[in-house]
Amino acid sequence: MAFPQQVRIVEVGPRDGLQNEPGPIIPTETKVTLINRLAEAGVRHIEAASFVSPKWVPQMGDATAVMAGIDRRAGVTYSALTPNVKGLEGAIAAKASEVAVFSAASEAFTQKNINCSIAESLERFVPLIEQARDAGIRVRGYVSTVLGCPYQGEIDPAQVAAVSRELIDMGCYEVSLGDTIGTGTPLKAKKMLEVVAKEVAMDRLAAHFHDTYGQALANLYAVLEEGIAVIDSSTAGLGGCPYAKGASGNVATEDVLYLLQGLGIETGIDLQAVVDTGHWITRELGRHNGSKVALALGECRR
Amino acid sequence: MAFPQQVRIVEVGPRDGLQNEPGPIIPTETKVTLINRLAEAGVRHIEAASFVSPKWVPQMGDATAVMAGIDRRAGVTYSALTPNVKGLEGAIAAKASEVAVFSAASEAFTQKNINCSIAESLERFVPLIEQARDAGIRVRGYVSTVLGCPYQGEIDPAQVAAVSRELIDMGCYEVSLGDTIGTGTPLKAKKMLEVVAKEVAMDRLAAHFHDTYGQALANLYAVLEEGIAVIDSSTAGLGGCPYAKGASGNVATEDVLYLLQGLGIETGIDLQAVVDTGHWITRELGRHNGSKVALALGECRR
Repeated sequence: MAFPQQVRIVEVGPRDGLQNEPGPIIPTETKVTLINRLAEAGVRHIEAASFVSPKWVPQMGDATAVMAGIDRRAGVTYSALTPNVKGLEGAIAAKASEVAVFSAASEAFTQKNINCSIAESLERFVPLIEQARDAGIRVRGYVSTVLGCPYQGEIDPAQVAAVSRELIDMGCYEVSLGDTIGTGTPLKAKKMLEVVAKEVAMDRLAAHFHDTYGQALANLYAVLEEGIAVIDSSTAGLGGCPYAKGASGNVATEDVLYLLQGLGIETGIDLQAVVDTGHWITRELGRHNGSKVALALGECRR
Repeated sequence: MAFPQQVRIVEVGPRDGLQNEPGPIIPTETKVTLINRLAEAGVRHIEAASFVSPKWVPQMGDATAVMAGIDRRAGVTYSALTPNVKGLEGAIAAKASEVAVFSAASEAFTQKNINCSIAESLERFVPLIEQARDAGIRVRGYVSTVLGCPYQGEIDPAQVAAVSRELIDMGCYEVSLGDTIGTGTPLKAKKMLEVVAKEVAMDRLAAHFHDTYGQALANLYAVLEEGIAVIDSSTAGLGGCPYAKGASGNVATEDVLYLLQGLGIETGIDLQAVVDTGHWITRELGRHNGSKVALALGECRR
């Protein structure tokens, strides 16, 4: 057992959380306030926007305005998802601190979603990563379906390791391992990570676990034991799972923070401030707060 | 690490779950159907009723009728909560397979709830346990507030160990350790159990964890690593937490089963049958289904 002393939380609520939000387009000002409040709460890494065609993701259509509107705090990374070079150019123009690219460990998933093989999908990122490097911007890589795929079911950890290694070799500074459909359980997560960590150093890996089956915290506890020190999460559990109606997606930042506090692991984040932010944003969106800690602690209005 | 190969689930939904249900009294027939469906799903230990004054717990006022109405399946334990000798007599008359008594690890909690010390509360169980022994009925002991108390906060694991040991010495065959307010986190749960296991053999201990802060499965994973092989849970997460409005209480049986399946641990229970039962009972009660696994898997109507 080798728990990290500190964990970096990568808050994905403003992007991964809001992108699938049904209903009317969320006002830019709301997104900006969300990001500012999270930074104020002590979150040091926030995925703030996605530079993707608004035809595909209408909720992210104001990415440039969001990035222009936020108060930039020293020491805070404001990242943006960039599926292609055009997105990268938008992110650079909008002064994103870093960008992120998406891949998957499942051939079936990649074929279904972007109609090409994993290898082909990775090749498309080569010019993007080169251009980002030239602009002095770091690139983070996501690998989805690491613990299960909605189309092919089981995923070979060796495949997760190979894609992760490839992203690092291509120039990503970190790879975030996504349990996209949330079907992972602790021993499976642990074994997957052990295989991946043979190809990529542990300090370049992050855990991005979904709570669709309620297993996210147990899985996080298991990979923390292995030494994972970067965790992706979403305030109020923003973001649903497209594969199961009414089911939850991203693990809630509040619940992760409570776990980490209990384990004596530092994050530098004020839990109650995140709880309050989660209550505020879910009220704004008219949606359920997906954090149990938030419901238990309640809101502390200031 | 020493995961058990098998885990016994003690389903507490029909008692611990339903007893606090607001709204009209739940029909006896509904309770009977719930218990029968759970037994049919393969649950081998069901807390079916509470023999307590209906003035205090109106939802349990029909305990005798419930016990009379269920189909007794071979190999299934139908237990009843009995706070006193009068309750025990009711449970014996109703042919309960076993009974359970409640204590706590917190002096403040005991004083607030039953206006006496822990030692005094235990003394009151002496005649009950003797009478149960004479009737050939096993007694299970609950210890609440093992990982935190709503009044005194922190709980010394040595106190949990002392009360657990006392219950065993008094004649209980098993002690269930309750995280009543759900504030526990995995390392705390693990350390508490390590202290208790020095006084009481691991195979006489059970984990009764609440999910109020979303930590229950992570905590269960941690104590499974220590060798706990009996887990209390509630279908659909029935039962709320009286200390936090809108917050959840009992960990959902479905979510525990999913975790155990993933760890390769046998329970003999059909997960989908429990999921279906949970959807049915929450529909009957007009309440939210508190199991994420149930929401993700959906109902399979037969």
